[in-house]
Amino acid sequence: MNVGIYIYDQAEVLDFSGPFEVFSTASRICENDTPFNTFLVSETGQEVNARGEYRIIPAYSFQSSPHIDLLIIAGGVHSSEMKKKTVLQWIRKTSANATVVASVCTGVFLLAAAGVVTKHTVTTHWEDIGDLKAGYPNLNVRESKRWVADENIISSAGISAGIDMSLHLVSILYSKMLAEKTAVQMEYHWKTRSYV
Amino acid sequence: MNVGIYIYDQAEVLDFSGPFEVFSTASRICENDTPFNTFLVSETGQEVNARGEYRIIPAYSFQSSPHIDLLIIAGGVHSSEMKKKTVLQWIRKTSANATVVASVCTGVFLLAAAGVVTKHTVTTHWEDIGDLKAGYPNLNVRESKRWVADENIISSAGISAGIDMSLHLVSILYSKMLAEKTAVQMEYHWKTRSYV
Repeated sequence: MNVGIYIYDQAEVLDFSGPFEVFSTASRICENDTPFNTFLVSETGQEVNARGEYRIIPAYSFQSSPHIDLLIIAGGVHSSEMKKKTVLQWIRKTSANATVVASVCTGVFLLAAAGVVTKHTVTTHWEDIGDLKAGYPNLNVRESKRWVADENIISSAGISAGIDMSLHLVSILYSKMLAEKTAVQMEYHWKTRSYV
Repeated sequence: MNVGIYIYDQAEVLDFSGPFEVFSTASRICENDTPFNTFLVSETGQEVNARGEYRIIPAYSFQSSPHIDLLIIAGGVHSSEMKKKTVLQWIRKTSANATVVASVCTGVFLLAAAGVVTKHTVTTHWEDIGDLKAGYPNLNVRESKRWVADENIISSAGISAGIDMSLHLVSILYSKMLAEKTAVQMEYHWKTRSYV
């Protein structure tokens, strides 16, 4: 399964590195199988300057990316991305072809701007709940949840909640045992339930 | 305060991105102050291929790095680093000039190989406790701890424990209030005590 994580300038570091750690570790420790091929994707494939001057080189551009089965949209300072037609089009098209679409933190704003979530039940960082409700009144925005699933779309609360959501995705896409082993390997106290 | 995080090929992604997120977020949300200047350092300053093919460009090389007040050594597949004289010399010299020295996961093996920890009380990833005891019998290796502090040296357990240790460092180097605000901003359930 190809796990593609969308990153951009001013993306929040833990929003993409947390899920990256979960899926790459799950694949590494999985016995007799490598269930997840995890990679970062940006618009151009060139160096991305994530929040706090953290310079990262994605594996692929929109053009060069292989098919994505699980698309994860990182949050951060997403306002510039909201204005980019190419980005929103790519998110819309890639989401339509993906098995599962996920967002971390404010990544859900990009899913909303791209029209991937319309009347869905979603969540975001506690600081942005008000803005999400105001900007997209048709969404059913939930508070105080680590993550929220609606059909094949799953959105997490802020930053570190992306780790809990990713472990949950490992559990439903592969096995609960692998998700638990991954949390133990990461020495992470997994919030296995979606409520805080 | 300059927070320098040492990274290298096959370093574990969350070992360095977790602490990076903590210190950069703490500085961003701190009122009327920017207490931490956080950056990644590698031997050459060139692109580093972290575990899982995660390509990252450090801000500095050993040569170009500014003075480091808090040195953090990430873990991962550290065996190649253990054999590099230049790396061990840099760790030894930088540690001697730092206010605080920290390790995440197996990063403590590099501190031991560099002679920075000798008879100290330390910890590491649960999987590597036996190897650390066997390789460095003079160390007092503790198990089932999120982190262990001994004088100005602090070592954490595996991967995500580096986040808890970093929040603890924010609390002692700046304020408990800032550490708590940072955990809330990251929506992270901070293990405030050093025991698991």
